[in-house]
Amino acid sequence: MLIVGGVGIWGLRDISLGLVEALKTAELVFLEEYTSITPGFSKRVLEDVIGKKVESLTRRDLENGRLREILELAQTNKVAILTYGNPFFATTHTYIVSEAYRLGVPVEIYPAPSVFDAILCSTGLHVYKFGRIATLVFPDEGVGYFPYTTYKVLGDNLSRGLHTLLLLEMRAEDGVFMSIPDAASVLLGLEERFRERVVEPSMLVIGVSRALSPDEEIFIGSLEEAAKLEKSPPPHSLIIPGVLHDTEIDFLHYRLGVKREVLTGWSESVKRRLQST
Amino acid sequence: MLIVGGVGIWGLRDISLGLVEALKTAELVFLEEYTSITPGFSKRVLEDVIGKKVESLTRRDLENGRLREILELAQTNKVAILTYGNPFFATTHTYIVSEAYRLGVPVEIYPAPSVFDAILCSTGLHVYKFGRIATLVFPDEGVGYFPYTTYKVLGDNLSRGLHTLLLLEMRAEDGVFMSIPDAASVLLGLEERFRERVVEPSMLVIGVSRALSPDEEIFIGSLEEAAKLEKSPPPHSLIIPGVLHDTEIDFLHYRLGVKREVLTGWSESVKRRLQST
Repeated sequence: MLIVGGVGIWGLRDISLGLVEALKTAELVFLEEYTSITPGFSKRVLEDVIGKKVESLTRRDLENGRLREILELAQTNKVAILTYGNPFFATTHTYIVSEAYRLGVPVEIYPAPSVFDAILCSTGLHVYKFGRIATLVFPDEGVGYFPYTTYKVLGDNLSRGLHTLLLLEMRAEDGVFMSIPDAASVLLGLEERFRERVVEPSMLVIGVSRALSPDEEIFIGSLEEAAKLEKSPPPHSLIIPGVLHDTEIDFLHYRLGVKREVLTGWSESVKRRLQST
Repeated sequence: MLIVGGVGIWGLRDISLGLVEALKTAELVFLEEYTSITPGFSKRVLEDVIGKKVESLTRRDLENGRLREILELAQTNKVAILTYGNPFFATTHTYIVSEAYRLGVPVEIYPAPSVFDAILCSTGLHVYKFGRIATLVFPDEGVGYFPYTTYKVLGDNLSRGLHTLLLLEMRAEDGVFMSIPDAASVLLGLEERFRERVVEPSMLVIGVSRALSPDEEIFIGSLEEAAKLEKSPPPHSLIIPGVLHDTEIDFLHYRLGVKREVLTGWSESVKRRLQST
């Protein structure tokens, strides 16, 4: 049997009772550590809790036949693969489970909170008001690669008055973590390149660092200001709000002390965009 | 202090270690039970785990001044409000936390998997390919109410090739739980009324009942067939897929045995819709 479980977004706080019980009875436990990071997570502490070793998996492990080996083990043993966040947020894990089903290995899935769940809790933004979620990656000017699709998704969401959650590039193995100021600069650069009037320096953004962790930081202000922020430890996400509901404004105001005028001003400007398209 | 915690989507399996620890030190624990249900959850078992009583809250409790009373208690005591799913999936909870911040009550939030997390795990559909999430409620012909916005969101998502997750009406206190066949009939009725060519009897839908629970059921087939399904216990969700990625097709094929042609056929028809708009 293959157990696929998420450990959530911040340390062992988010791991579920059910997953801990399942891991206690597993013969082998692997942890995939390259698609994300959870700042407060300690493999050592998890090992203490479940009473067995946890082996780390690299990208190479999963891409070079090691996965096949693990799935073969799972045909006769109880094998667990753990991931950060909710197991199906990264397409890698969909692939792992798909392969397991293909080989006829029974699968048990333990869900966990994703970064999207954390962002909803941190910002009070309504789930129904989000448009498509997108990932923002660094452009590669050398090969002429620019993340146009993400720019387009943002424009598309905004023209419908919807919020956009941008998940920022993260390659844990290479130590690459896009920060909020990096993301703001990338967005400004995309506008300079594509000039479709999606991004403006004055647009309101919400930057969330280490959502729901004890050292969570939330920035609300213009994109231009965001580009000048000091970098802080990852992971980071960036939200470009659309039209804000009164209760969303209340939440951001009471929680973070943001002036209502800042929020309503932006919301009104999105509404105007809405009417003009 | 106010602790706001989610218990996830299926019983105590999904409750986090962090939340359990926090509840052990709380003086009062309330459970809001009207916005959703979790089929395998037992208040009694939770009480055993945390060693104290859990008091149920009704809609009336939260709407009639009881909330104020609870928040006043939280000014001097450690008070917890638990909810099913992820705490911020229902706007009720955003309001509760907003009120706490307004009154200066410190808040600690414990995230949990939402129905969206479960749906991603159950279906292997990619998070990036979902458009706006919507709720489908029963029309009220008497007062001339029809959920046009939801119909519109579906059309909008489809015209972009995106998946639509429909959360189906649930009023636990009144015993109202929209089932997959109910939802399919409502959608067909909306098309008859609005005739904007959003809904077709032959469109492919994925109905998920009790996602990730031991008695999870997944239906894949036409909307017309979905309308004729037998009702099974709640909660249910309905997904109308957009353009399907090869790895999504693999997952659904290997997991559920759906013929690839059914999936690629639908995906192609959404692509044609995409090109014609």
